[in-house]
Amino acid sequence: MDQLVIADKTFNSRLFTGTGKFKSNELMENALVASGSELVTVALKRVDVDNPEDDVLAHLKHDQFNLLPNTSGARTAKEAVFAAQLAREALGTNWVKLEIHPDPKYLMPDPIETLQAAEEMVKQGFIVLPYIHADPVLCKRLEEVGCAAVMPLGAPIGSNKGLKTLDFLEIIIEQSNVPVVVDAGIGSPSHAAHAMELGADAVLVNTAIAVAGDPVAMGKAFGQAVEAGRAAHLAQIAQPRVTAEASSPLTGFLNQL
Amino acid sequence: MDQLVIADKTFNSRLFTGTGKFKSNELMENALVASGSELVTVALKRVDVDNPEDDVLAHLKHDQFNLLPNTSGARTAKEAVFAAQLAREALGTNWVKLEIHPDPKYLMPDPIETLQAAEEMVKQGFIVLPYIHADPVLCKRLEEVGCAAVMPLGAPIGSNKGLKTLDFLEIIIEQSNVPVVVDAGIGSPSHAAHAMELGADAVLVNTAIAVAGDPVAMGKAFGQAVEAGRAAHLAQIAQPRVTAEASSPLTGFLNQL
Amino acid sequence: MDQLVIADKTFNSRLFTGTGKFKSNELMENALVASGSELVTVALKRVDVDNPEDDVLAHLKHDQFNLLPNTSGARTAKEAVFAAQLAREALGTNWVKLEIHPDPKYLMPDPIETLQAAEEMVKQGFIVLPYIHADPVLCKRLEEVGCAAVMPLGAPIGSNKGLKTLDFLEIIIEQSNVPVVVDAGIGSPSHAAHAMELGADAVLVNTAIAVAGDPVAMGKAFGQAVEAGRAAHLAQIAQPRVTAEASSPLTGFLNQL
Amino acid sequence: MDQLVIADKTFNSRLFTGTGKFKSNELMENALVASGSELVTVALKRVDVDNPEDDVLAHLKHDQFNLLPNTSGARTAKEAVFAAQLAREALGTNWVKLEIHPDPKYLMPDPIETLQAAEEMVKQGFIVLPYIHADPVLCKRLEEVGCAAVMPLGAPIGSNKGLKTLDFLEIIIEQSNVPVVVDAGIGSPSHAAHAMELGADAVLVNTAIAVAGDPVAMGKAFGQAVEAGRAAHLAQIAQPRVTAEASSPLTGFLNQL
Repeated sequence: MDQLVIADKTFNSRLFTGTGKFKSNELMENALVASGSELVTVALKRVDVDNPEDDVLAHLKHDQFNLLPNTSGARTAKEAVFAAQLAREALGTNWVKLEIHPDPKYLMPDPIETLQAAEEMVKQGFIVLPYIHADPVLCKRLEEVGCAAVMPLGAPIGSNKGLKTLDFLEIIIEQSNVPVVVDAGIGSPSHAAHAMELGADAVLVNTAIAVAGDPVAMGKAFGQAVEAGRAAHLAQIAQPRVTAEASSPLTGFLNQL
Repeated sequence: MDQLVIADKTFNSRLFTGTGKFKSNELMENALVASGSELVTVALKRVDVDNPEDDVLAHLKHDQFNLLPNTSGARTAKEAVFAAQLAREALGTNWVKLEIHPDPKYLMPDPIETLQAAEEMVKQGFIVLPYIHADPVLCKRLEEVGCAAVMPLGAPIGSNKGLKTLDFLEIIIEQSNVPVVVDAGIGSPSHAAHAMELGADAVLVNTAIAVAGDPVAMGKAFGQAVEAGRAAHLAQIAQPRVTAEASSPLTGFLNQL
Repeated sequence: MDQLVIADKTFNSRLFTGTGKFKSNELMENALVASGSELVTVALKRVDVDNPEDDVLAHLKHDQFNLLPNTSGARTAKEAVFAAQLAREALGTNWVKLEIHPDPKYLMPDPIETLQAAEEMVKQGFIVLPYIHADPVLCKRLEEVGCAAVMPLGAPIGSNKGLKTLDFLEIIIEQSNVPVVVDAGIGSPSHAAHAMELGADAVLVNTAIAVAGDPVAMGKAFGQAVEAGRAAHLAQIAQPRVTAEASSPLTGFLNQL
Repeated sequence: MDQLVIADKTFNSRLFTGTGKFKSNELMENALVASGSELVTVALKRVDVDNPEDDVLAHLKHDQFNLLPNTSGARTAKEAVFAAQLAREALGTNWVKLEIHPDPKYLMPDPIETLQAAEEMVKQGFIVLPYIHADPVLCKRLEEVGCAAVMPLGAPIGSNKGLKTLDFLEIIIEQSNVPVVVDAGIGSPSHAAHAMELGADAVLVNTAIAVAGDPVAMGKAFGQAVEAGRAAHLAQIAQPRVTAEASSPLTGFLNQL
């Protein structure tokens, strides 16, 4: 069976999801369950770490879900490492989605701080999945310091623009020895399917599910699209052609005229 | 339930398929069954009309399938009408996919002959689904002469290039009072999902399934992708944004530092 | 020297221009002079045909300009032919830009009425340049009935979206035996240069010059871009490559380390 | 007059050029003169630093040209700094185009080594123009350590694919306080014009001129296109519109019918 393995975990679903922007925690729970997602990222901020009855966490207590705390809000390596330590203690997981974005407008990640934080986190025993620009050399360096996966962006976070970094994702997928998870920018199921068709190992979707008219239906649609894109990748997609070629023969019955 | 109605028929699947280019009729049958497709286009040429045991037809005898004979090979309205008449007699259906492409290299359809043939076929009692360029005015005229649906192309037949006519498909979908079926150029499940997300009523896929490494798996993937795209359309997709917006809050735990 | 010949006229500039949407006739005159354009299209409506002192025409009385009356506003072949006859009488030219767009929202051209009008106009001795969708088969049919050039659109009129019909323009340029003028949708000089690089014989620009912050500077910029694009086409552009190749050698001085 | 200032130099031309891949040094000289370029990058390797009669340099002895030695071939910050020192000594200029690309296949730049080298070079008194991925955060950091300009890539070097990083170039241009020079991937004059229209301060072109059928004509075409794109940027380009709007009025003469 086609499963995704990252570090010590095995996933049947290649759709990773986020928990921000939902209108309610109930809606979040229902949408994520419908999506089939098995890895859910959660910002430390959302979680009241001193309260075991925290509402967000309560809604994520499904066998289906593994939690992936993220360092969103960190602007430097030092802040990110601190956030990861807090998360480990609070949530009991050493998995971390490393995010460092100093720019409040476009939230683009910082390559320098990210590499530095990744190196330190790996040393401290974290399973590190860094969110980064679609920079092929940076991806290789993150792999070299021991990251468990790389998470290049498709477009700015929350932009819903799709795979604007297509040409670079192709290089990253070709060169990477760790799973490639396309994160940010995926605005519709067709974008997610496209990423999978290219050979990405997974995608992370948040905004596009959370702000849809019907987040539960949209979660399910993303789950299906990711499966379809993965299956198409495995079934080998034919390449685009310059000249057309008819599916149906051109001559034929006309001889009967 | 979300069903598609064209003329007198109701469809649960919005994936229409073609029968050309498969390596064998067995493979074709299995791929089309896996795709869930309920409308299958077949070129008259492929069918030995005098032989009730014809092999192509034998492989399409499933309750799942409705046949849509096409006029592929016709270069003029006259030839197309003749082909439709032959098909009606041979296959016992008055449905016809009207295709007229005089150019053997790119197989682009002829707008003038197509409109003329459509008008005549409607008069003769056919249910006409014309394959045409993504020309919004032509689509309206075909609707006005009584076509049951319009089938604008996404890209040249067999090119697998996807929705190259996107800007015009959007206009056609906005203006059409009959179902819009995107035909030709769809090369992967993500393309099919994209068409459905835009609001197309169905897509027709042939080459991309037939020439995939594994046509059965690809057929199934297309079926899923069309469902996902349709569901996303109904669930209301969020629009692309220029500025990013974090799914996770930017400040937060850092106050604890 | 590289000149464009259409029917009986020779052009040094491959930038055709329009006269709509300018803030004043003076501004229009200055922008069109600056653009170097030698063929200027004018809507019959703008011209007071009974008044030899008409202001629009007065501003176009330059040796540089040839007038190309258009049939904008016509919704049928009959209306277009009538408009052309009026224009011939009023402006003393048998050249006509044939435009028929029944749809008031997107102004997409009607292929059926356009072909019909073209055929009639050619019979009546007009030099006909039809504005049409980027439909390769329609272009061939217009050529066959005697049109002097074809004018496929790049994108909807006034949309400034550029060459959205790229894949079809390439086919048209490859197959046409008459000059191909890309008309509509060209929103910036880079779009115009792109059309010329593909091998288009000329472009027609109106909105993008007329509504620019500085129409005179923009007119000049378009003139330069069209020259640059044409020169690049003649100088043979290298094709895109999948793999990078360094302009500078990779090894070298490092041996000295 | 619209001039570009970088560090202590003023440029009338915003087209920077490279010297690789030309069939001969004569052809290179003629093409670069025709292009109007005033800043020419040269790989240290090409130059025989011990030979004052070196042929490449001899062909670049024009008042028109300023030399910009590059560190192509360097795989680490250390190698790049060494290369810059060699170049300063050999060519008598403290300007340097900083390039570090460890990957021999796609030649993508290394963000970590580049920032480190830039910091060191600035300390050593160099005028540093780093070639980098279109990474907005990295651009800001390079600006902060004192780089005189930033040179984000449009697409992989030598790929001729154009502005594949468009969405990120827009952010970089919006945020940068130093000149932005789009480098790599520009394959035709329309690509160069497009970069200028976006607001880039300059572009660097090498392969597309060097390997054109006629490099001298292509050099001139690029020069024109860069001027046109810059002029269009200054003249304020109108934004794309969703709905069409006629340049010519829709009704009008038809009232006379």
